[in-house]
Amino acid sequence: MQEKQRTEIATLGEFGLIRHLTEHIELKNESTRYGVGDDAAVLSYPNSEVLITTDLLMEGVHFDLTYVPLKHLGYKSAMVNISDIYAMNGTPRQMTVSLALSKRFCIEDMEEFYEGLKLACAHHNVDIVGGDTTSSYTGLAISITCIGDAPKDRIVYRNGAKETDLICVSGDLGAAYMGLQLLEREKKVFEGQKEVNPDFSGKEYLLERQLKPEARGDIIKKLAELHIKPTSMMDISDGLSSELMHICSQSNTGCRIYEERIPLDYQTAVMAEELNMNVTTCALNGGEDYELLFTVPLADNEKVSQMENVRVIGYITKPELGLALITRDGQEFELKAQGWNPLKQ
Amino acid sequence: MQEKQRTEIATLGEFGLIRHLTEHIELKNESTRYGVGDDAAVLSYPNSEVLITTDLLMEGVHFDLTYVPLKHLGYKSAMVNISDIYAMNGTPRQMTVSLALSKRFCIEDMEEFYEGLKLACAHHNVDIVGGDTTSSYTGLAISITCIGDAPKDRIVYRNGAKETDLICVSGDLGAAYMGLQLLEREKKVFEGQKEVNPDFSGKEYLLERQLKPEARGDIIKKLAELHIKPTSMMDISDGLSSELMHICSQSNTGCRIYEERIPLDYQTAVMAEELNMNVTTCALNGGEDYELLFTVPLADNEKVSQMENVRVIGYITKPELGLALITRDGQEFELKAQGWNPLKQ
Repeated sequence: MQEKQRTEIATLGEFGLIRHLTEHIELKNESTRYGVGDDAAVLSYPNSEVLITTDLLMEGVHFDLTYVPLKHLGYKSAMVNISDIYAMNGTPRQMTVSLALSKRFCIEDMEEFYEGLKLACAHHNVDIVGGDTTSSYTGLAISITCIGDAPKDRIVYRNGAKETDLICVSGDLGAAYMGLQLLEREKKVFEGQKEVNPDFSGKEYLLERQLKPEARGDIIKKLAELHIKPTSMMDISDGLSSELMHICSQSNTGCRIYEERIPLDYQTAVMAEELNMNVTTCALNGGEDYELLFTVPLADNEKVSQMENVRVIGYITKPELGLALITRDGQEFELKAQGWNPLKQ
Repeated sequence: MQEKQRTEIATLGEFGLIRHLTEHIELKNESTRYGVGDDAAVLSYPNSEVLITTDLLMEGVHFDLTYVPLKHLGYKSAMVNISDIYAMNGTPRQMTVSLALSKRFCIEDMEEFYEGLKLACAHHNVDIVGGDTTSSYTGLAISITCIGDAPKDRIVYRNGAKETDLICVSGDLGAAYMGLQLLEREKKVFEGQKEVNPDFSGKEYLLERQLKPEARGDIIKKLAELHIKPTSMMDISDGLSSELMHICSQSNTGCRIYEERIPLDYQTAVMAEELNMNVTTCALNGGEDYELLFTVPLADNEKVSQMENVRVIGYITKPELGLALITRDGQEFELKAQGWNPLKQ
């Protein structure tokens, strides 16, 4: 293992650390009027609505530093929030970042974290405009708030799905969950053994989906180009089943989706087989895919069909028909949300 | 001690808990277009700038639940952020609230926390528009983001202080720190002894300042009424010395303040004496007062003099004169920031 320099955070102090981590940040968005350095950041949105989303990530619950490199963690923490802005059909613009650090972290660790964070922000044109750095007696806590905007008539909520609307999903599902299983398995195998590099060849995609998810700004852009405004949308962070339940319950509808239409990657299927798990269950209930789930009017069928990386998986029904999954062999099951719930046992 | 009901959080789950805690929240601000329940909240600010501030509070570092009731903690967590919006000369409007909870907390605990939070928001007309609730393996983590607004030409930064400007402070200083000392002392005395109610009579003000601080929206309102626009402003959360250093360093000035002008409450002085501490040191370096520190042009002298609860404590000088404190006996000292720094030892 590479020896790295270790500078105690106390040598800079709270304000010094924030300054150090944010000093070379260039502000790129016109809506950013004042960034880090005052009691609050100042933004300007005269012509569009402001979107605000926030997430709190706790060590041991949301991430395991034994196998997640800090740079990846920074990248993913930013991406998770950026994804929520896209899920409103908006454009992410600014971000505030608060960290609580235990003594085990040094300045170099935080530089790595910020490297990932800045990379994610650069990919999506997001300005880091503020935050807070403090200490923690226990693990690492990360709180990110992302601010974006959208013209009022372009915002897409979860509650607008209508009967006969097509249900669409971007990318593929279940791979992030398989990546997590893989990392957890290797952690157990190699626990206590340093200097071992597990062989992940042939499974790179699963690891990437778990460690370096990418928010689907490309899909939002494409929807705008094709003049498609989804009737409802959200990002898939807790699993397809759970998110479909949100859309159907908030829109007061039912749905009917087809197992054979659920997009899966080859590596996901192989890994599920290896672990003796049902790949459809993984796709339905495995979280952290950060793909988009959206519904469009039936009339947009032709337009969505030409979209790369988008699959129609079913349609919206009357509420009394419930949430139905039609399996490959034609059986019908009721969808249950077993999505990842960090407050359940 | 009162027996209270204890309902496990798992009985509601993450979404159920958020729904339960936020279901009766009425949205009062016109700028709030959509609150809790989607991927992001939607706000509208066509005619003013948007102010964003965020804070992350960790159990054991920022609060001690052995003597801080959860209702007070909710109140204070909200107030700390509301104060930052006032410190920009803005009006607080919305708030997002993220909590990470360990198993030791039950639904009733969170109801208490939200009771305090809602009370603070009601006092300052702030809408709770979103958040995140998750679990923690260790203590309680609270992350709050407050959003406010101000007309562009009314925003006050830290960097606008000019030579000869008067330095003003609202309320009085050091009491919150004395309240903390008092609580810490009683904690030590009574540790291990249940059913003991320590006698805080004659010290109620100190406890209130520590447990239930009040952001100074009244001062912001009064400044507007008197047509005073401060040249610089911030709230005093880390101690007067530390905040003066921020203003002077960002404005590239020096300052000269007078010990005898620093506003102190009688109870603060008594408690300092009891603890054998220098009361001026407490006022300079004790944190969490959440009073406003601001500078105004000399020409506004008469106007600020008629403001209740505002004291002129000195004036801004050339940067080469440094930061000077003139003691009661006429000696001159250089101000040092020993403000509360949670990342130092």
